[in-house]
Amino acid sequence: MTEEIVVVEGDGIGKEVVPAAVSVLEAVGDFEFVRHDAGDAVKEETGEALPRETYDAVAAADATLFGAAGETAADVILPLRTAVESFVNVRPARAYPGVDALRPETDIVFLRENTEGVYSGHEDRLSDDLSTLTRVVTTSASERLAEFACDYAPEGFHVAHKANVMRETDGRFRDAVTGVADEKGVETEEVLMDAFATHVCLDPEQFDVVVCPNLAGDVLSDLAAGLVGGLGLLPSANIGSDNALFEPVHGTAPDIAGEGVANPSATILSAAMLLEHLGYDEEGTAVREAVESTLSDGPRTPDLGGDASTEDVTEAIIDELD
Amino acid sequence: MTEEIVVVEGDGIGKEVVPAAVSVLEAVGDFEFVRHDAGDAVKEETGEALPRETYDAVAAADATLFGAAGETAADVILPLRTAVESFVNVRPARAYPGVDALRPETDIVFLRENTEGVYSGHEDRLSDDLSTLTRVVTTSASERLAEFACDYAPEGFHVAHKANVMRETDGRFRDAVTGVADEKGVETEEVLMDAFATHVCLDPEQFDVVVCPNLAGDVLSDLAAGLVGGLGLLPSANIGSDNALFEPVHGTAPDIAGEGVANPSATILSAAMLLEHLGYDEEGTAVREAVESTLSDGPRTPDLGGDASTEDVTEAIIDELD
Ligand SMILES: CC(C)[C@H](C(=O)O)[C@@H](O)C(=O)O
Ligand SMILES: CC(C)[C@H](C(=O)O)[C@@H](O)C(=O)O
Repeated sequence: MTEEIVVVEGDGIGKEVVPAAVSVLEAVGDFEFVRHDAGDAVKEETGEALPRETYDAVAAADATLFGAAGETAADVILPLRTAVESFVNVRPARAYPGVDALRPETDIVFLRENTEGVYSGHEDRLSDDLSTLTRVVTTSASERLAEFACDYAPEGFHVAHKANVMRETDGRFRDAVTGVADEKGVETEEVLMDAFATHVCLDPEQFDVVVCPNLAGDVLSDLAAGLVGGLGLLPSANIGSDNALFEPVHGTAPDIAGEGVANPSATILSAAMLLEHLGYDEEGTAVREAVESTLSDGPRTPDLGGDASTEDVTEAIIDELD
Repeated sequence: MTEEIVVVEGDGIGKEVVPAAVSVLEAVGDFEFVRHDAGDAVKEETGEALPRETYDAVAAADATLFGAAGETAADVILPLRTAVESFVNVRPARAYPGVDALRPETDIVFLRENTEGVYSGHEDRLSDDLSTLTRVVTTSASERLAEFACDYAPEGFHVAHKANVMRETDGRFRDAVTGVADEKGVETEEVLMDAFATHVCLDPEQFDVVVCPNLAGDVLSDLAAGLVGGLGLLPSANIGSDNALFEPVHGTAPDIAGEGVANPSATILSAAMLLEHLGYDEEGTAVREAVESTLSDGPRTPDLGGDASTEDVTEAIIDELD
């Protein structure tokens, strides 16, 4: 049976790194790729950054590989995360041998709540002077995340929050997450999100898996990206009960878009997460290892100090797979 | 005329570093210190972490020096920031010569909005499953902050926000801040708070003064603390129209409290900010320079790899002042 994968390249280097990842996927399995559009270019053409048919296709697919969107990023990626009903955004941040990193010992996976917090989208303009945003935290979403976290990290995890200030909402988050973990006998350690920001710089090795609310996950995973050498290497997975969407953490990199020198590693690592999600564990591991060995002694794109093209790097990774 | 300074030591090492800073202040000027209590110990005794008389004294004083509070930190410091009607929290984060820092070239001042955002304190438990927090952003508070920022950094500043997601609230913040700056001919550059977290690790020198909403300032300044070697050296000033409160960014450090080895630098640097705020510019500069030269070749407390006591360091700083 041929598995169907929806592919949304988006804008900028999305149009270069997604095809690179697709050719890696083609090298390890028999997939049918169904292409859909989203992003700035589509908006320019049609007035809509996220066409209904793209949304519907992503919602119906088992798995989607997404690149990046430009100015319209939030209009594209937030609804797409909703389309796959993804309750967790899995964001591994690790340094790779041979890649310049501020803290090479960093190896942290963020499990970011992916549906609520300040992302719930309720904002009001109450007067000429005052606007409000309604931050939402539910026990059900927090528990769903915690169950995933307990499966993902049975050896225990950190819970980052700001419950000393957001007592009711982050208090609810913390209680729900630690409650599920306690029931399952999984150890948790709490850390305030501001304290985490200091401590991860001083001693990243103390953190392994970090469960956090939506915006905390956004900022703290980008911080970890800074410690491992930038966003160019970070994959991510938006996991729902029935389907999932995989995307590099980086954006469209307008400064280098179109030049064929974008680093495809983050998207290919996202494709590895996609393979594992679909049950192709061996293939997923093989792809990840091929990326790692190419990063450590293969051709390099300019962001890593080399002068190889996206294609050179992709070919080297595919060669490693054989 | 003897100037009155309210002093609130609080808990833990607050009881050690505040007296150290007081003796430095005594060495440079003629001040009257009026002591008040707040924190865990007071709560244990009286049931209240922040006695009314402490609040009133801080609200009435031109300047207050605060140490740290333990479990009750939020119950103490948030109302005290309100007591001085402080619209900005000034947080300089810089590395000092000779002090181990991940990014020694970091030299950033955060101007953190100090009254609203998620700190406005409106939370509701709407059902057994769902709680909300009302995040508040006003044009007036944002403009007040921007006016301060334009005076503070006429050469321009960054504005960090998350207006791609919090469009109405952070959009209002961004528009108000850049609007005031435009009018005054001060240049601003926007940066998303998540992108800032990556970029400040990769290249801190591109940032000088960063204006941000309350929680962004909390997390991003703690991140910068991680880049300069920890919270032990970071002072801060909560500035209002008529009065102000100065505090180290660090907490009560329960692990070393009572041992007489706490690093007093952050609190003494906060006292230097206090001096400047009261118009003692020369004395403020002298104290800052004395701390810097002691940090670079004087005795060191254990957090900086030395074995000196709080008193040793304080004496060395006072000696430098002569
Ligand atoms: C583009 C933006 C809406 C998005 C987010 O805030 O989640 C991005 O920063 C990310 O982390 O994927
Ligand atoms: C103790 C806490 C309420 C406080 C804050 O969140 O502002 C602290 O983290 C700080 O940065 O001073």
